[in-house]
Amino acid sequence: MRGGSESATASESGTAPAGGAAPVSPRAPAGGAGRLFVVATPIGNLGDVTLRALEVLRSVSLVAAEDTRLTRRLFARHGVATRLVSYHARNAAARGPELLAHLRGGADLALVTDAGTPLVSDPGGELVAAWAAEDGAVVPIPGPSSVLAGLVASGIAGPRWAFEGFLPRSGRERRARLARIGGDPRTTILFEAPGRLAATLGDLAAACGEDRRAAVCRELTKIHEEVRRGSLAELAAAAAGGAIVARGEVVVVIGDDRSGSPGRGVADAAGGGGADDAVARARADVELLVAGGAARGDAARRVAAATGIPRRRLYGAGEAG
Amino acid sequence: MRGGSESATASESGTAPAGGAAPVSPRAPAGGAGRLFVVATPIGNLGDVTLRALEVLRSVSLVAAEDTRLTRRLFARHGVATRLVSYHARNAAARGPELLAHLRGGADLALVTDAGTPLVSDPGGELVAAWAAEDGAVVPIPGPSSVLAGLVASGIAGPRWAFEGFLPRSGRERRARLARIGGDPRTTILFEAPGRLAATLGDLAAACGEDRRAAVCRELTKIHEEVRRGSLAELAAAAAGGAIVARGEVVVVIGDDRSGSPGRGVADAAGGGGADDAVARARADVELLVAGGAARGDAARRVAAATGIPRRRLYGAGEAG
Repeated sequence: MRGGSESATASESGTAPAGGAAPVSPRAPAGGAGRLFVVATPIGNLGDVTLRALEVLRSVSLVAAEDTRLTRRLFARHGVATRLVSYHARNAAARGPELLAHLRGGADLALVTDAGTPLVSDPGGELVAAWAAEDGAVVPIPGPSSVLAGLVASGIAGPRWAFEGFLPRSGRERRARLARIGGDPRTTILFEAPGRLAATLGDLAAACGEDRRAAVCRELTKIHEEVRRGSLAELAAAAAGGAIVARGEVVVVIGDDRSGSPGRGVADAAGGGGADDAVARARADVELLVAGGAARGDAARRVAAATGIPRRRLYGAGEAG
Repeated sequence: MRGGSESATASESGTAPAGGAAPVSPRAPAGGAGRLFVVATPIGNLGDVTLRALEVLRSVSLVAAEDTRLTRRLFARHGVATRLVSYHARNAAARGPELLAHLRGGADLALVTDAGTPLVSDPGGELVAAWAAEDGAVVPIPGPSSVLAGLVASGIAGPRWAFEGFLPRSGRERRARLARIGGDPRTTILFEAPGRLAATLGDLAAACGEDRRAAVCRELTKIHEEVRRGSLAELAAAAAGGAIVARGEVVVVIGDDRSGSPGRGVADAAGGGGADDAVARARADVELLVAGGAARGDAARRVAAATGIPRRRLYGAGEAG
């Protein structure tokens, strides 16, 4: 986010705004209840922790961790001695109410997952949602995320992007999500297990076009950090041929679709959109219509009518990428 | 990212993998060239910087900063004395080649923006892309991002989400992007200027449904951090009525579309998808077809045929949100 001069006016003291529907301030818990700090932790390198994350982890009375063994390693490295309790998908139903009671009692709580920024696909998402629903204070302590580390390392990301998590391993939903990724001109980021990388890259090449640029990021922030860039077809072949080490979870980044707009990169990155972007989006709409069963010519005609973009400019995305 | 036991096996020493198409390791620059460290910096609170970010900023010979005045404040707070050079949209054409020459000469370079994780909408994206194209080492140093801080603070995010940056202020592309957001069942995150918040929330309510859950996050990580949650209609009214302070850029989070699947939340967050998710996606496909000009009944029939989901389950998303 472009912050302007206000972005660095941080301070450790201050008061919260008064009134409002559900104001949340890191310094002013509502009605004496505890604050739920959602703390990002390293994705590999234990040095990737913020000063404030350590301060919060040291100052709260309890830390709920997805994997206490991993979090103990982080604590040992940085001299944190706070009490840890496990909170993961398998004990969330029982442990969640205890954690909410801890917060209601006025004590602060920090939530961490085994790596990166706690998100909603982790069990912590339910806790955050439940505490937010009680108008409790939810305080994000920002830090590492594999999603953004992969996006940055790829060197191929566009200004807008979508995160798709893990694809289902098979079946109709996998096909539907692949089709959706193929029809989206934006950058897509997803996770994959190493043993499934070749199959997924192959499916992505089929869905997005073999020439679509992509990157495969492994072991980000660790010693053997590796980023490979190439077309989806090249990367699929490398993975199938054993040229990509099958160890550690993988972040796959699919570049934005630049087919048909060769000069787009720099101008679009600087300007954040414009005419070429509208064309790319309209083409994606055509692909979605085609994926939904429409004939290509019919789809192009409809989208042309809806957007005012000449129909001939809406062809080509399917072939090229 | 769920890391398992490998996620915390960080170390400060080690060797890089040999061979491969374009391997990049933080410890082994390719061919004696410099490494381009892409360093995340605070989004407000100056304590939101990682130990490794400080280590990198101290150890490189040059830091390219979007706003050297802001970065100097960070440096002063943490005792960093590295030479700074400005690199922003207005001087990128002239400064970019100098920075690439610095890297080619074998010296490391760190890139920072004024706040958060450098992304492609910043001028740095071009530098990263150019260095990656030369097979240069691009090393992400992960840390804060307003996008993820907003996602976490919202308490309403789903397991998959899209980042849309700033919407255009008016015109056809704004309408097209609003329609796309309305047709996407996933969580959407976007930025907005405070003076335009009421208008954008109103447009989002029209595009996504008045009852769609959302959150408005202001001044994240700062003293006056504020998160308001409510329906898009409620938030639009609050912004229009002056109940949301019009200062500081805003992160708007639009929750995933749970209309028609009231029991979905917990099961879906824990299971990461499944049948309800397939229905939500199919409904979004219907909305996209409708947005593209199809009659609703016709759209539902096509999607039902393509997905096998009963047609009656594909109605309702348009009315409810």
